[in-house]
Order: sequence, then structure tokens, then C-alpha cells
Amino acid sequence: MIHATSVVAMDRTLGALSKILEKAEAHCAARTIKPEALLGFRLFPDMLPLTRQVQLACDFAARAAARLAGAEPKSFPDTETTFGELQARIAAVRAYAASFPAAAYDDAATRDVTIKMRGQDVTLPGLQYLTMYSLPQFHFHATTAYNILRHNGVEIGKADYMGTA
Amino acid sequence: MIHATSVVAMDRTLGALSKILEKAEAHCAARTIKPEALLGFRLFPDMLPLTRQVQLACDFAARAAARLAGAEPKSFPDTETTFGELQARIAAVRAYAASFPAAAYDDAATRDVTIKMRGQDVTLPGLQYLTMYSLPQFHFHATTAYNILRHNGVEIGKADYMGTA
Repeated sequence: MIHATSVVAMDRTLGALSKILEKAEAHCAARTIKPEALLGFRLFPDMLPLTRQVQLACDFAARAAARLAGAEPKSFPDTETTFGELQARIAAVRAYAASFPAAAYDDAATRDVTIKMRGQDVTLPGLQYLTMYSLPQFHFHATTAYNILRHNGVEIGKADYMGTA
Repeated sequence: MIHATSVVAMDRTLGALSKILEKAEAHCAARTIKPEALLGFRLFPDMLPLTRQVQLACDFAARAAARLAGAEPKSFPDTETTFGELQARIAAVRAYAASFPAAAYDDAATRDVTIKMRGQDVTLPGLQYLTMYSLPQFHFHATTAYNILRHNGVEIGKADYMGTA
């Protein structure tokens, strides 16, 4: 059940995010908009730009997949500066999450997971880590990426986010 | 496990959303901004305004709580026009979701849930309904409410969304 709630569900949203970014890149090409204008766009000056929102959604998915499987999360460097590189990041994270066998999540609900929160180590049971931390964080950044593009006129709708478009 | 992933987790985010709306209302009062300016604000002209985002987050939480417990969801009319009324909606939905005993969710993962999608009845096992539908929808609307306020300069951050501020 943890595997379905974490890896399977996040994979679907990452696939949706990939298609949303394809539409954003096509939008730039069709209107002669510099990709950097969207990739660096923030909904408010002290918010993170699109690229960081995508990177963070990827991180929360990758870390949940590893930690809930009892593994140490692999770090993905934040070096992307183009739509193509963000697509590669998403593909790499999806492959990484899929590399853990579903059976590795059988005991994940009660497995201790330790994360840094405000510089302090906090240990939570896997179920609480997933439901109270990973999933809200993941959707927070994925939806903010969507909202940045929607605010800029990219023709996407909720079905794109839900992966049913 | 379904109860923790649905009712408990969504209750935390609804509590966070309530505090975010309190900050938004205080922001209006401090700067002589008409509350309607925020309540009716859209990130793009054909997006839904703040009030609808909050109502929809409430709906996805209430319906998940009921359906996963094997009950017919109660309908909440969309009549709110003030911050106070949105607070009452959130409080009513939290009380409604808490009215189902945790034990009602013991078989929820495999319980058939029927929803309307694009006018068609679709039946899913409870686990799939929760992970692929309810949770993404819920966070999509709650995060969009947050982003509308953040975009308008309300002083909130991710910790407000996570309920750890």
C-alpha cells in the first residue's frame, strides 16, 4: 500500500509534469518566448522559480522512494538550465524510484525514516513521513510549477496535472 | 493506514489552510485591501478564484472522508463570500471528516468507490481513488489557494502550508 501511495502515485504526477513542461517549451517556441523567461519565472520575487520547483518536486519523489525502501537517497545535482535538462532530471528520478522493488515497501509504514527539518534530525515512522511530509511537499512544488506556467498563459488545465489530459 | 493517509493528512492541511486564510484576512485589514480583491483573485483570467480553490479543496477532503468510509458524501453548498464564511466551511468539513470512526476505513483500500469523471461513472478501488485522484486534487487546489495569496504579497511560506509554521 505504501508503494502505491508513494512511488506509483508520484510517478504519475512526474509523468504529468513532464508533459506540462513539453507544452511550456512548445509555447515558448510558438511565441518566440525565451525559455529562460519561463524557467526563471517566480510568482513573487522571493519565491523559487520554475526550475527550482521542478527540481524540488523531483527531490521529494526520489527521497521518498529511497527512504521508504530503506535506502539512503541518492542526490541529484541542481544543474538544469533548459527544458531538455529538466526532462532528463524527471526521467532519471522516475527510473531511480522504479529501481526499488515493490516488495521493499512491505514494511515501510513502520520503518523509521530520519530527515533534517530546520537543521535538526527528526525520525518518523514511514507512514507519517509519507503522508504528513513527502506527499504535501511533492504536490506543493509540482502544483506551483503548474501555476507558474498557467499564470504565464501556457494552455494547460487540471487534467494535465492529473495525468488524464 | 487509509485513515492516516486521507482524513488525518487532509485535516492537517485544512488546518494549515485555515491559518493561511487568517493571515490573508489580517493582510487585507492592515493594508486597507478589500477582502473581495483577494477572494476573487485568479492567477489567470480563466482560472478559478481563491474562494473556489478553497471550496474545492474542502470538497475533495469531505468526499474522500465519506466515500472511503463507505458513506454517501454530504454536499456543502458553495455560498461563501467572506473569509469568515470560508473559515466556517473549513471547520464544517473538518468536523464532518472527523465524524467517521477510524475503524470505518479498515477495508477502505479495496472498497469500490464510484465517482463521476467527465460525466461518466468510474469505479475504482479505494486505494487508487485516494492516491491517484483525491490527494492530487486536494493538494492541487489547496496549493493554488496558497499561490494566489503568495502572489499577492501575503507573508506566508511553505511552513504555513505544511502546518509547521
